[in-house]
Amino acid sequence: MAAVVLVQGASRGLGLEFCKHILSKKSEAVIIATCRNPEKALQLKDLGVRYPEKVTILKVDVTRENEIKQASEIVKSKFGKVDLLINSSAMLLPSGKGETSLRDVSCEGLVATLTTNTVGPLVMAKYFSPLLMKGSGAFGQQTADESKHHSGILVNMTAKVGSIGDNRKCFKSLWKNKTRLGGWYSYRMSKAALNMATRNLSIELGRGRPKVVCVSLHPGTVDTDLSRPYHKNVPKDKLFTTECSVQYLMNLIDNLSVDKTGKCFAWDGSEVPW
Amino acid sequence: MAAVVLVQGASRGLGLEFCKHILSKKSEAVIIATCRNPEKALQLKDLGVRYPEKVTILKVDVTRENEIKQASEIVKSKFGKVDLLINSSAMLLPSGKGETSLRDVSCEGLVATLTTNTVGPLVMAKYFSPLLMKGSGAFGQQTADESKHHSGILVNMTAKVGSIGDNRKCFKSLWKNKTRLGGWYSYRMSKAALNMATRNLSIELGRGRPKVVCVSLHPGTVDTDLSRPYHKNVPKDKLFTTECSVQYLMNLIDNLSVDKTGKCFAWDGSEVPW
Repeated sequence: MAAVVLVQGASRGLGLEFCKHILSKKSEAVIIATCRNPEKALQLKDLGVRYPEKVTILKVDVTRENEIKQASEIVKSKFGKVDLLINSSAMLLPSGKGETSLRDVSCEGLVATLTTNTVGPLVMAKYFSPLLMKGSGAFGQQTADESKHHSGILVNMTAKVGSIGDNRKCFKSLWKNKTRLGGWYSYRMSKAALNMATRNLSIELGRGRPKVVCVSLHPGTVDTDLSRPYHKNVPKDKLFTTECSVQYLMNLIDNLSVDKTGKCFAWDGSEVPW
Repeated sequence: MAAVVLVQGASRGLGLEFCKHILSKKSEAVIIATCRNPEKALQLKDLGVRYPEKVTILKVDVTRENEIKQASEIVKSKFGKVDLLINSSAMLLPSGKGETSLRDVSCEGLVATLTTNTVGPLVMAKYFSPLLMKGSGAFGQQTADESKHHSGILVNMTAKVGSIGDNRKCFKSLWKNKTRLGGWYSYRMSKAALNMATRNLSIELGRGRPKVVCVSLHPGTVDTDLSRPYHKNVPKDKLFTTECSVQYLMNLIDNLSVDKTGKCFAWDGSEVPW
């Protein structure tokens, strides 16, 4: 049976690019692409038209548990398994503008950001982990030890600014780049909490058999709608296109195994501290 | 002027114990004790009756930004400063029972726990940091270098299970204690995100002058309402009374300085990994 990939948050940015990449480079795979509003996702709809037998588009607002549950039931009855789940959707804040200081923090903004960036991916894991446990191990590398083979891979897209330990380092090295110091409370906190979810998932889904490999991945500084307002001070050679970032990330995913579960990796394969 | 301590979540557990400890051991300090429902906080009300000139009880539900704002205005007009803010309130989940597996995770439970344990303390920091910057440096140790003196101290009560890096270690050492493996998603994630808040606050409030020292503190395994259902497998000599834990924590606080800001410490002074 074909490899099954589910990309959550597939309407634009990295999620959309994962779909394009897999369709062009992984000819044996089918894709379930979810987003909040498929009607408005013109590029994704276009992919659906071009690859009607390979792309299934489902409406999923990750802040609504019942929509995630329904989607999981559709995927279960249509495919019976998932080999790779990529949780890709995220926001800086509902306004699209991260907090520059404590003054900008609000209860409402924090809750909205945590719900989309953190709660959504974990509730996705809740409903799709049974399908990942039915995966065929179509992605990543199986270890020599058969007892450690994995059935599926779960990827939470995180960001280096979600690293607590790295936060001070950013502070020092970017001393003169004031826009990056502190701030981005909601986004940073949502990604730190997501990293904990990854770690906890790796324990629960790595304990028995079949095993699901769970990782957080940092895509680098990528030219997407989310980050575009903040590119002014990024050197051009440090700013990735989505194509470039996804190429790196898929290369990483192709080399994942149970030995790497529960960790956070950057696009270049280096481990990101918690 | 007297030292001013604000204890958020003072109706019971560690928060209440901090109030008692400070009243008996720090005779020069006054306390602002906040909780969701002062009418029902009988032990706290009793402290207010016994120390009418030292204890101010304010109603603050940390999930309501307007209540935090109003409280900050009252404290500003009455005291004009805060020397020590302790964010103490937390829940495992609204039910009081942490998730034992992914099956128990729900969008509603995650959002409620993150709102109380993570969003609340950060919104407290938003409104009280201007008052902490007016503190007299009454707590902790001032460094020899005057440019690094602090005005106030902000403590977020965290927990070792909120350490992402430590999660695997718990897993290994408690292999036979199944109730502690994985699980507690909401609580773990809320504390990891709170640790990020601490780190980010330490950067923003440590950059200029006056400085506010910001730390996360792990109280040990303490006999409180939150943790009591989980004590069955804890050896008696590892289970602290609130008195004992607060004694350790106040000792730590008395030794804080700007050099220690942005870190997470356990009751015994050891640094907890992120």
